[in-house]
Amino acid sequence: MDNSTYSFGMIGLGTMGRNLLLNMADNGFSVAGYDKDASKITTLEKEGAGKPVKGFTALNDFLASLSSPKVIMMLVPAGKIVDNVIDELCPLLSKGDIIIDGGNSHFTDTTARVSRLEEKGLHFFGMGVSGGEEGARRGPSMMPGGDTHAYQYMQPVFEKIAAKVNGEPCVAYIGPGASGHFVKMVHNGIEYALMQLIADAYEIMRRSLQLSNEEIRSVFADWNNGRLQSYLLEITADIFAYKEQDGSYLVDKIKDEARSKGTGKWTTQVATDLELPVPTIDIAVALRNLSKYKSLRTALAAAYPAEDKKSTNGKEGITKLEAAFYFSTISIYAQGLHLLSRASAEYKYQLKLDEIARIWRGGCIIRAALLEDIYKAYKANPALEHLFLDASVQAMIQSALPAARDIVSTQMANGISIPAFANALSYFDAIRSENLPQNLVQAQRDYFGAHTYELIGKEGVFHTEWEGNQ
Amino acid sequence: MDNSTYSFGMIGLGTMGRNLLLNMADNGFSVAGYDKDASKITTLEKEGAGKPVKGFTALNDFLASLSSPKVIMMLVPAGKIVDNVIDELCPLLSKGDIIIDGGNSHFTDTTARVSRLEEKGLHFFGMGVSGGEEGARRGPSMMPGGDTHAYQYMQPVFEKIAAKVNGEPCVAYIGPGASGHFVKMVHNGIEYALMQLIADAYEIMRRSLQLSNEEIRSVFADWNNGRLQSYLLEITADIFAYKEQDGSYLVDKIKDEARSKGTGKWTTQVATDLELPVPTIDIAVALRNLSKYKSLRTALAAAYPAEDKKSTNGKEGITKLEAAFYFSTISIYAQGLHLLSRASAEYKYQLKLDEIARIWRGGCIIRAALLEDIYKAYKANPALEHLFLDASVQAMIQSALPAARDIVSTQMANGISIPAFANALSYFDAIRSENLPQNLVQAQRDYFGAHTYELIGKEGVFHTEWEGNQ
Repeated sequence: MDNSTYSFGMIGLGTMGRNLLLNMADNGFSVAGYDKDASKITTLEKEGAGKPVKGFTALNDFLASLSSPKVIMMLVPAGKIVDNVIDELCPLLSKGDIIIDGGNSHFTDTTARVSRLEEKGLHFFGMGVSGGEEGARRGPSMMPGGDTHAYQYMQPVFEKIAAKVNGEPCVAYIGPGASGHFVKMVHNGIEYALMQLIADAYEIMRRSLQLSNEEIRSVFADWNNGRLQSYLLEITADIFAYKEQDGSYLVDKIKDEARSKGTGKWTTQVATDLELPVPTIDIAVALRNLSKYKSLRTALAAAYPAEDKKSTNGKEGITKLEAAFYFSTISIYAQGLHLLSRASAEYKYQLKLDEIARIWRGGCIIRAALLEDIYKAYKANPALEHLFLDASVQAMIQSALPAARDIVSTQMANGISIPAFANALSYFDAIRSENLPQNLVQAQRDYFGAHTYELIGKEGVFHTEWEGNQ
Repeated sequence: MDNSTYSFGMIGLGTMGRNLLLNMADNGFSVAGYDKDASKITTLEKEGAGKPVKGFTALNDFLASLSSPKVIMMLVPAGKIVDNVIDELCPLLSKGDIIIDGGNSHFTDTTARVSRLEEKGLHFFGMGVSGGEEGARRGPSMMPGGDTHAYQYMQPVFEKIAAKVNGEPCVAYIGPGASGHFVKMVHNGIEYALMQLIADAYEIMRRSLQLSNEEIRSVFADWNNGRLQSYLLEITADIFAYKEQDGSYLVDKIKDEARSKGTGKWTTQVATDLELPVPTIDIAVALRNLSKYKSLRTALAAAYPAEDKKSTNGKEGITKLEAAFYFSTISIYAQGLHLLSRASAEYKYQLKLDEIARIWRGGCIIRAALLEDIYKAYKANPALEHLFLDASVQAMIQSALPAARDIVSTQMANGISIPAFANALSYFDAIRSENLPQNLVQAQRDYFGAHTYELIGKEGVFHTEWEGNQ
């Protein structure tokens, strides 16, 4: 066995770990992988034949093979296993060594791990990795957060293996602490909302516009060739093209009960902790949950038959739907970015939203042409408080807004469930309201709970005995 | 000092504790209060002059004055203080004694306390109390949860002091563990949603129907005389009647930035943990948070001026709005009750939804005429899976649904922010859909993450290589 030969180590050689490691080897880095499961080593070395990649089933041998400071990434299931691996590694590492958690850990776990390892002189990075198996192998988007000085030891590797957009790698140092995992969590929250929006559009096309699967595929494919271009639309078009041997569409046979892994839920929960509204992410999480009540839905469908009316059809209907989709997409990204900006202030993450938009342009699940516009908006004004305030974005919104209103009002009148469209518009109408009716909410809280209220243009808090004054 | 004279003890003589204790004394119970603050004792004994109530500033004296088993309620701020009081009490109590937490503690804290005290042979009750100061003094709604046998020692007192509806007290044994605090939390979540709904109605009346405060007051007062009768509408009418000495309306001077104490947030967070959709509660929490971004809203209002159009006015507009409000109210209670039913299964609370609807009919903030109908629905069928499935409720919904569609579609076309109305309707349209577009979501998850999917009518989970099949 040769010592100190490998510059990067990977613990956990499942699909993601193996493919990331092979990606590194493709790019000329000498890399080592560790897994207790010998069959995983066999697969790694078979797929990596002729490349500078070696697998180990003994942790000591694996660690001895790494150059200093050791840079070790782990891709293991989030939760207790991450802590177990850390506990096993710690006594075997030296000051300055680096552990990177590339899984979807909750950012509060990452915060605790960063502190714990810092006390031992070790660096802990939480890194969001998006792009699935395909991305891991050919170029993911990566969101590493941790010690800024330690980042230099992984930067060359990550910049090489990342997806590229206009020659720029889809990776950037995100910030200190758990910022990398936080940003990945919000990425996933945006993903949930975009997927619900696509589901809404599908619902409108099949129920209201009464399009066939082939027509729906064609619409999504067309959209993907224009300003709506995105990975999620691209795969949606593929899904509506997928036929079984008997000519039937696979999508029609899949149960309409959505599952989830928790990152969407985390996003809505953290947003409420931070008191930052993300209603389209909230409703996407709620709809996944609602979909699980299949037998209840069936019983309710019998009690309340749908009153579907065929809506504006043909080209005009699709043109409006495209614009409404565009508007809603902007609203969803705006909510996610606002959450990042709020979290950055709260947790002192010093997030650069332009860099985040830049690295989301390629490799990740939410990559979309719109991110180029978002990137430009934040690059022109890194302190932009809200995406809706950018002048170019404002022009896009103004042009698409009438269609969004039309689609939402028509479909809700028709009884079609379009919660993502509805909440994207509700959010816009609320946040561009200089005066909201929440003065009444404060008066009510003061009335029944003596919670006090504040007055316009007058310092202090006040309480009133409201009853009986007429 | 006389020993063993008092049958009920209260720790914490702030507004709520003092008024509950005086309420008990009014009803002939001999009660003792404890507070370190001597001025609180003075107030208690002054207001309770001539009644069987005594105050103590020494904990030992207070405890010695109570008959066995000691029944001690605490009304102190939720959080660490509750544990401090428990720690102080424990060594001074005997097996079988009972501690009742009447504050708004998080139910998971209550669960931990019940277990901790059970090990010591003590009974711990988490009890939701609703009705504010007024309710505490004249008759609150109370939701006690804990050991079923220990309940007998407090039942006579609580049944006496509770609000009465048709002669029945608004209190019932809720269930084991933290069920009392859980039910109170959901009560508050419903309260948030109802308050946002009233705020939406206010927004429509002032912006779209262009009514004056006096006209708005008159509408709310009228509604409160009909099927919409509720405490929240009653106080809302009072609020719109409240004029300052110069004749101006106080409500117009209150800042439109809503505050909150956390129970609404807890409800949405728990609902996502339980994977149970409560979108109108979610949006109410989101809107309180959104309202805090006043300077951002002002900047966005300048960029996106409102396109308000005057809507259907006069009697017809108000009639529709009343029906839409009725529909939305049913949707909100249905979401909250569905959450209770889900939590009951998950936490084994054995909740009786008919009893909960019964005790919410009076004394509490969400009391409303509609709760009589809800009570009847669950009394007729205690296993009712969802409120929408009740035949009487179904008739109410069918009659009000067209108006709800009209209001939502018209106002969203007009650019008026009405998120509670919109989500109450979105929820209905989604949950009465036998087929949702979530089959597509599952296909997408399988495409990018190999998360697998299930098929209609076929056991197992499946994965497909979707790409490139055309």
